[in-house]
Amino acid sequence: MIVVMNADSGDKEIARVISRLEEKGLQGHLSRGMERTVIGVVGQTFPELRDMLELMPGVEEVIPISKPYKLSGREFQPQDSRIKVGEVTIGGGDLVVIAGPCAVETERQVVDTAQAVKAAGASIFRGGAFKPSTSPYHFRGLGEEGLKILAQAREETGLPIITEVLTPQDVELVARYTDMLQVGARNMQNFVLLDEVGKTRKPVLLKRGMSATIQEWLLSAEYILSQGNRQVVLCERGIRTFETYTRNTMDISAIPIIEKLSHLPVIADPSHGTGKWYLVTPLALAAVAAGADGLMIEVHPTPDFALKDGVQSLTFENFEQLMSQVSALASSVGRRIATGAAKM
Amino acid sequence: MIVVMNADSGDKEIARVISRLEEKGLQGHLSRGMERTVIGVVGQTFPELRDMLELMPGVEEVIPISKPYKLSGREFQPQDSRIKVGEVTIGGGDLVVIAGPCAVETERQVVDTAQAVKAAGASIFRGGAFKPSTSPYHFRGLGEEGLKILAQAREETGLPIITEVLTPQDVELVARYTDMLQVGARNMQNFVLLDEVGKTRKPVLLKRGMSATIQEWLLSAEYILSQGNRQVVLCERGIRTFETYTRNTMDISAIPIIEKLSHLPVIADPSHGTGKWYLVTPLALAAVAAGADGLMIEVHPTPDFALKDGVQSLTFENFEQLMSQVSALASSVGRRIATGAAKM
Amino acid sequence: MIVVMNADSGDKEIARVISRLEEKGLQGHLSRGMERTVIGVVGQTFPELRDMLELMPGVEEVIPISKPYKLSGREFQPQDSRIKVGEVTIGGGDLVVIAGPCAVETERQVVDTAQAVKAAGASIFRGGAFKPSTSPYHFRGLGEEGLKILAQAREETGLPIITEVLTPQDVELVARYTDMLQVGARNMQNFVLLDEVGKTRKPVLLKRGMSATIQEWLLSAEYILSQGNRQVVLCERGIRTFETYTRNTMDISAIPIIEKLSHLPVIADPSHGTGKWYLVTPLALAAVAAGADGLMIEVHPTPDFALKDGVQSLTFENFEQLMSQVSALASSVGRRIATGAAKM
Amino acid sequence: MIVVMNADSGDKEIARVISRLEEKGLQGHLSRGMERTVIGVVGQTFPELRDMLELMPGVEEVIPISKPYKLSGREFQPQDSRIKVGEVTIGGGDLVVIAGPCAVETERQVVDTAQAVKAAGASIFRGGAFKPSTSPYHFRGLGEEGLKILAQAREETGLPIITEVLTPQDVELVARYTDMLQVGARNMQNFVLLDEVGKTRKPVLLKRGMSATIQEWLLSAEYILSQGNRQVVLCERGIRTFETYTRNTMDISAIPIIEKLSHLPVIADPSHGTGKWYLVTPLALAAVAAGADGLMIEVHPTPDFALKDGVQSLTFENFEQLMSQVSALASSVGRRIATGAAKM
Repeated sequence: MIVVMNADSGDKEIARVISRLEEKGLQGHLSRGMERTVIGVVGQTFPELRDMLELMPGVEEVIPISKPYKLSGREFQPQDSRIKVGEVTIGGGDLVVIAGPCAVETERQVVDTAQAVKAAGASIFRGGAFKPSTSPYHFRGLGEEGLKILAQAREETGLPIITEVLTPQDVELVARYTDMLQVGARNMQNFVLLDEVGKTRKPVLLKRGMSATIQEWLLSAEYILSQGNRQVVLCERGIRTFETYTRNTMDISAIPIIEKLSHLPVIADPSHGTGKWYLVTPLALAAVAAGADGLMIEVHPTPDFALKDGVQSLTFENFEQLMSQVSALASSVGRRIATGAAKM
Repeated sequence: MIVVMNADSGDKEIARVISRLEEKGLQGHLSRGMERTVIGVVGQTFPELRDMLELMPGVEEVIPISKPYKLSGREFQPQDSRIKVGEVTIGGGDLVVIAGPCAVETERQVVDTAQAVKAAGASIFRGGAFKPSTSPYHFRGLGEEGLKILAQAREETGLPIITEVLTPQDVELVARYTDMLQVGARNMQNFVLLDEVGKTRKPVLLKRGMSATIQEWLLSAEYILSQGNRQVVLCERGIRTFETYTRNTMDISAIPIIEKLSHLPVIADPSHGTGKWYLVTPLALAAVAAGADGLMIEVHPTPDFALKDGVQSLTFENFEQLMSQVSALASSVGRRIATGAAKM
Repeated sequence: MIVVMNADSGDKEIARVISRLEEKGLQGHLSRGMERTVIGVVGQTFPELRDMLELMPGVEEVIPISKPYKLSGREFQPQDSRIKVGEVTIGGGDLVVIAGPCAVETERQVVDTAQAVKAAGASIFRGGAFKPSTSPYHFRGLGEEGLKILAQAREETGLPIITEVLTPQDVELVARYTDMLQVGARNMQNFVLLDEVGKTRKPVLLKRGMSATIQEWLLSAEYILSQGNRQVVLCERGIRTFETYTRNTMDISAIPIIEKLSHLPVIADPSHGTGKWYLVTPLALAAVAAGADGLMIEVHPTPDFALKDGVQSLTFENFEQLMSQVSALASSVGRRIATGAAKM
Repeated sequence: MIVVMNADSGDKEIARVISRLEEKGLQGHLSRGMERTVIGVVGQTFPELRDMLELMPGVEEVIPISKPYKLSGREFQPQDSRIKVGEVTIGGGDLVVIAGPCAVETERQVVDTAQAVKAAGASIFRGGAFKPSTSPYHFRGLGEEGLKILAQAREETGLPIITEVLTPQDVELVARYTDMLQVGARNMQNFVLLDEVGKTRKPVLLKRGMSATIQEWLLSAEYILSQGNRQVVLCERGIRTFETYTRNTMDISAIPIIEKLSHLPVIADPSHGTGKWYLVTPLALAAVAAGADGLMIEVHPTPDFALKDGVQSLTFENFEQLMSQVSALASSVGRRIATGAAKM
């Protein structure tokens, strides 16, 4: 932590800052520049220290220099984390494709879609049983009934299942039926939920909040990791900006940045990231080119009759085309699509 | 709902849209312009209709024209809602000031602050027992112990109490100790929590999410209202923008806009909205000038020793000055500061 | 400037940074913390230094600590600047109201409006002769013909005139006809134009760019000041955010921030800042409450027939009401509306 | 254009809107829904009509349905535009790589870089002679001297030259020395400059403004096209968002969106888009995967001694690696890097 003093602060203010640091068992290392004096803080700092110093007379600004996250950082663990979901490994080099409908509607819809996405090369199946919806008047999911339908899709295809959990009370229930828990963008800072999924030993897919910085996203991962669950996969799904043509703005740069800062795998969700089906394939390709460990894609047998987010869902045929384009691109960068459920 | 057809769509595509509408018990009203044909949808539409139509061949865009919220809108209830918190009325013309520390730390800190803010004219006392914190390593509140301290502050001052509730499981507990429930910005789209506070009969303060549009904010209020709890107060607390000098950007325009669109009262929180104590008073004055029904202000006996958000908290003395400036400004627009707990 | 080294950088990297600094005539002041080593740079730094250091092996981050603007900062000039426009002083304590139509359309419209705004208490008259327009097919202003009409309005009312200048070549022409030059939001980083208005001795109103930080805004002022023209007034007119209900989001916090960082006066333009006539008065009041030195308001005799921005313009009657509300509010904070042209 | 009436508007207000439309030679086509009445406007509308209608009593909203741009739209010209720069064609399927230093510093630096980027496969050379800089104290370019150095680089390598023009007065001068004119992000809405480059017959590279919507960007292209210059190439270079880890947020979605809406070619500039050299290659690959017609890359012999933007520039070696990765990826999607200057 570095304390930058005001241009007009004097020796008295500087002495007070140093003495406050010493009270706290820290040391202040003084450095007088031409326009500003700065004080380097030496010792084990604590979160409240920043505000405490910023409010002292003569202090202009306090700049933290350590990263606020630990367990999720590359400094803590230099080698890549590999997360196992059933037989599939995310983060091991192969490209993992998660696909399925936004919402579970009927057994027919779900099983058909699971079979179609498996045939096209997806290795994890997704579907929402509990749906967050901006309006209380929209479809909010089938609940446990939906979880049962998902479990049946797993039985019929062998694909591991991921679904979103909305609230701490449901974690145990959802974990019982599925192989991976999803924490959605709107819950990225639902800290009680993060604690709760952190207490399970299920892999967790943590979506980026729509106005979350990369650092805040890693701090939310830190909540899960610090509860003892080290199986976290990050998912870039677009951020909110002034541009309204797309539902969100996919921040493709976040993919190589996460790779640099963290050992956790990162995948991309171009369906929510763009909100328009015809943009899903170009953005999926972009994410893979930028180094994503996988993709999450919405697929529906008849998007125009979907109960939720049909406008961003691919038909089976479009999904097959996406997979064949992704596969060609992956091989050009020495990678291939994972085939976790191949033995079935 | 209006369906805008592509410039190159033909009679066949138009006929298909109209026949799809008729299948759904609706009518399509055709209007051919010079560049575009549009189809007005007549009848009771439903949320999924938009996606369904947008995916049909020849359709360029579907524009909803009804407002998606009902119970929170002025069309549903033209006269202002008045929300009673203890003896205090928010939305009745008088300016209600809610004040207190960000986090409950000790009994001494809380009781002293409650007495100080009461003396200065605040009519509701705030303090956090459950704290959402970006990092798992920061102070997260005293929990039920904190609620007990708050209850004691009420006993000693007569001020009604508001505190944040973070998760559905805690709603019953928090409602037992306090007079008003706060749903924080990070939980504005925690829909399970909204449902749960909607089932109580306690007034709710709903903060705006940091990347929520005004429409999404009203839809979150709609969750609470549609559960039968009509006692909702909205709180503008800044949105996330590219400007980093302030912690958030206070959207002062939201105050008159809410007043126009909704019958619910709206207050402002310049402490979180700016993140810097020296901006709190100017922004509090601005909010009142723009028509806010009240203010929420962080106050701490010794901000530089606060466990949370000291840098945006006012000292007792600064709070007194704020109250005297707000009072002068309020009287210039024919308003005054509410005095709910005056009888004690 | 502070150089933060990587956690895994060693003595060799540190030595190389220090020796690079010495090559440039600077000194490096070493401070070893628990997690990071930082090097304080002592001496007269230069703009390219940051990149140069950031690219050296072992360097994680370079943090500038001096403010990049000089002449516009409070450290350079502690007392407020007072800018004279004709007989009117902006920044002297009185509230200066600039009003008039978005675009000059006809002599009748301009002279009528000038008389109406003068009668209501405005002290500077505005009107656009050169209009920036998002589309090439929209009205782009009358050009010099418009300047002549403005000059006539001055003659008939005695109000000094402000108008926007769009391009360096027009500076001399516009300066000949008017009393104050306006640089619009879209031109805030048109550096050649800033140089050019900096070479005149006319007061300049510098609007904030719609995605400009406060620091960038002050740096644009610095362009004008560093050419020798010290008569700069800043104008907050809303920034671009994700919220689409308003045309822009008025950043009211910018007003007290500018007051803290700079000696230059700052006014607010709620007409462009909101884009809706019914939000102009509440936001004008908010800006004054937050400490603005003045207001800029669009007024049109018949807004529904305006050639530009009618939807955000006030009628004469609405403007009168605004002035009476602003006047009441100003007096509650010990201020009053300036009356520069009173002698006519 | 569609006029949406208030829920409580009556026949009188509707009749007035229709009669106003008829005064203007238009027709109003009435459609009564369950909650709202809408009036479709039939006939040739004009820009001011929207405000005019929005201000009439009983009108809630006016929704434009025609696209505001014409010449840049796919409806006007369905087939892709191909822009010739020297012997190189942008938009013809092959990937065009523009590379060179941010700023022209010395003849040695420029000629060396031109030779290096040519050897690595770039087909157009870039370099800034007039530099826009946030601060007046930073390097602002060598001016005409820089243009001469660029011309010499062309002579020695055969690569066509692109450079930025900052102000209308310089257009003629810059056009004399170079093969393509660049309009920078900060000048995207410098309409006088757009007019001026529109009057030349040189190809123009139009960068997206950092807070410009896609529609505003196309309208700026429209300025150039409507002056008769049809040789416009668009360049995505990142937009301003709340995320501060990168200098800007690359909006990769803009690439397929432009391809859908417009016949103009679109390229990507990951150097400015990210502001960090180690993100340039992943984002370049992402842009190509998403369908970009080309790339613009900053290259410098010794980035740590660059006078401008060294931190985002690639060394010759890094650029070679980028080219080889881009080439592999391009071939996986059936494309290849253009080789315009091959004959030299």
